Amino acid sequence: MERVGGWFKARLEKMKNAISGVGKEAKRLGKEDPRRVVHSLKVGFAIAAVSLFYYFDFSFDGFGVNAMWAVMTVVVVFEFSVGATLGKGVNRAIATLLGGALGVGMHDLVGFTGEEKIEVVLLGLSVFLIAAMATFCRFFPKLRARYDYGVLIFILTFSLISVSGYRADVVFDMAYRRLTTILIGGAAAILVCIFICPVWAGQDLHKLTASNIDKLGTFLEAFGHAYFQESIDKNQASLKDYKTVLNSKGVEDPLVNFAKWEPRHGKFKYRHPWEQYLKIGSVTRECAYKIDALNCYLNSEVQTPLELRTKLQESCTKITSECSSALTELAIGVRTMTCSSSTEIHIVNAKSAAKNLKALLQTGLWPDTDFLHIIPAVTVASLLIELVSCTVKIADSVEKLAT
Amino acid sequence: MERVGGWFKARLEKMKNAISGVGKEAKRLGKEDPRRVVHSLKVGFAIAAVSLFYYFDFSFDGFGVNAMWAVMTVVVVFEFSVGATLGKGVNRAIATLLGGALGVGMHDLVGFTGEEKIEVVLLGLSVFLIAAMATFCRFFPKLRARYDYGVLIFILTFSLISVSGYRADVVFDMAYRRLTTILIGGAAAILVCIFICPVWAGQDLHKLTASNIDKLGTFLEAFGHAYFQESIDKNQASLKDYKTVLNSKGVEDPLVNFAKWEPRHGKFKYRHPWEQYLKIGSVTRECAYKIDALNCYLNSEVQTPLELRTKLQESCTKITSECSSALTELAIGVRTMTCSSSTEIHIVNAKSAAKNLKALLQTGLWPDTDFLHIIPAVTVASLLIELVSCTVKIADSVEKLAT
Repeated sequence: MERVGGWFKARLEKMKNAISGVGKEAKRLGKEDPRRVVHSLKVGFAIAAVSLFYYFDFSFDGFGVNAMWAVMTVVVVFEFSVGATLGKGVNRAIATLLGGALGVGMHDLVGFTGEEKIEVVLLGLSVFLIAAMATFCRFFPKLRARYDYGVLIFILTFSLISVSGYRADVVFDMAYRRLTTILIGGAAAILVCIFICPVWAGQDLHKLTASNIDKLGTFLEAFGHAYFQESIDKNQASLKDYKTVLNSKGVEDPLVNFAKWEPRHGKFKYRHPWEQYLKIGSVTRECAYKIDALNCYLNSEVQTPLELRTKLQESCTKITSECSSALTELAIGVRTMTCSSSTEIHIVNAKSAAKNLKALLQTGLWPDTDFLHIIPAVTVASLLIELVSCTVKIADSVEKLAT
Repeated sequence: MERVGGWFKARLEKMKNAISGVGKEAKRLGKEDPRRVVHSLKVGFAIAAVSLFYYFDFSFDGFGVNAMWAVMTVVVVFEFSVGATLGKGVNRAIATLLGGALGVGMHDLVGFTGEEKIEVVLLGLSVFLIAAMATFCRFFPKLRARYDYGVLIFILTFSLISVSGYRADVVFDMAYRRLTTILIGGAAAILVCIFICPVWAGQDLHKLTASNIDKLGTFLEAFGHAYFQESIDKNQASLKDYKTVLNSKGVEDPLVNFAKWEPRHGKFKYRHPWEQYLKIGSVTRECAYKIDALNCYLNSEVQTPLELRTKLQESCTKITSECSSALTELAIGVRTMTCSSSTEIHIVNAKSAAKNLKALLQTGLWPDTDFLHIIPAVTVASLLIELVSCTVKIADSVEKLAT
């Protein structure tokens, strides 16, 4: 009896831990981005509102079973950002219209044959052909990026309507009601999404771009200090943050696609050059790869002895601090959408520091030392010189955005 | 009149070009991966088959309007790979079951109050709470990776069923029919997906991992030749292919998630260590970042003069060719799931070549030359030495997969 009790207690304890673990994770997720909590409440509100519309519709029998399409549309269309929601909503509405029209047309056309056997074969064949062709279209990269969901809904609506066994006038009525309810659901989702604490994908993309550039600047600043000191905490956050930049493409691409759907908001005009963010992202990543190489030298076991390194300290720290300032300024520039003139000064300074470093390397700094000992420091120096041109590239692409 | 005709002609020409452009792109996509064409036909077949089931059901009135859930399920669940289809199908089935059960329960529970006003408030509140909570759950990264679609369907089914204005026994019947039709649709999609020319995500992941390692090997081989020649086509494919590896994470992560859903197939057992592919991918990318740095030196304007470079040629080419062979062997090893012993020989050779290169650098190869001229070559040499340890890392992680 006691053993059973003990087993039970252990189970209970385990479950308690699991629940508190989930609770902690939920708290962390909510704190990391409070908009997540708001989004959940928004979705709950929109679904509850449209569900009650569906509920009352039963008494009046306005849309009948079709009213459930409104609920379905809200659940499926409501996404985190306004752009994603608008994109899905527009896709769904247009695809339903197109698919419905083609479905009604096909239904009528086949009905003319009069004989049921031929009708079935023709319907099956048309569904097969249209579904196969539309599915293949989903592999086109450009279509996939923006209209994938639309093609899916097109296939769905077309097959549902063309094979429905109703008479032609009923089909037309059904298609009309379905479209109306989908519009109601889509409108509810989009209105709640836009007018209650909206989350703009464009703004997120904008902030992400700025913070990625910022992270590179932070790393360089920290690196300048860390590399010329004997022992330093190499796990500090400022030296690790850049790692997320390396794989930022996966976050950036969808955000750009969403942002294109968004109307004018805040400081972003309707035709904001979102594509330019992809270019900035690409040069930022290029710079991050170089920084990753730098980071390897910080953690490498083979190191140039500190007393040899210090000979390069002045010019190297000058480069890192100037590049870092330039990058930080650029990040601020992206955030505020201004072109700061001090960026250029920092870049000019960084360039001249790079020149100095080159000249310094030319003088034969370490006359009687083992060449092997010098290599790491020389590599670091040459990476830093390259980083200056990387910074220039980022500055150019940011400037293009500003104009 | 002529002007109108000319305008019309120009339009027609433009349209012709656009259509032929789409046709060419379609041909390219089909040639690149013929499975895309097969997939489209499979989807068309499955949808047509289930649509006809829906069509005939109208005459027998077996499932009524609920039969359309079968069509919907096929359209939404049928994905390119077996893993993705199974994942979506299982998610949809379980989520419908759970959401339906909770919905029926809530519907019954609220029905006990008897008064309609209280009923409506309670229903709205429960939909709001459950939808908001479930939506927040979609932010949990682990849940999102595998069960995102399930949570969506759970919210959908729960709200549709709990607010439907039917009497309790009708609701139960409806939920039962909906589940049955979803199972029919899901089964059709899964059966067609598995038994007609299946596309296994696991196999794709496997091939991708091997080809990524292969690409690095090809680059190194080509680099060894290109770097020590005066002029060479720096745009050849073997020197560019590695670029796709840099951003491979976005392709790999979903494939791993899909692969986990797949049953035993071919040479893959049920519990194949798919997570290990993520580790291999991560070290492969690390290696690719280094290779990107190497590539910069190939295209850089500041170069060590060729006559100075040639002094390093022997050991450098040795390293590149040995590393390249090791990587190619590893790629073959991944493909055939064997552990080749010749990889180790190549790695031992590469390590000793790296040692030689270090010793060579120590000897003071270029006594009276401008230090600045040597730097690029020295950096390349030190990058190559690092690449040896990168190769060792890849070999280790591949070996772990084999055991």
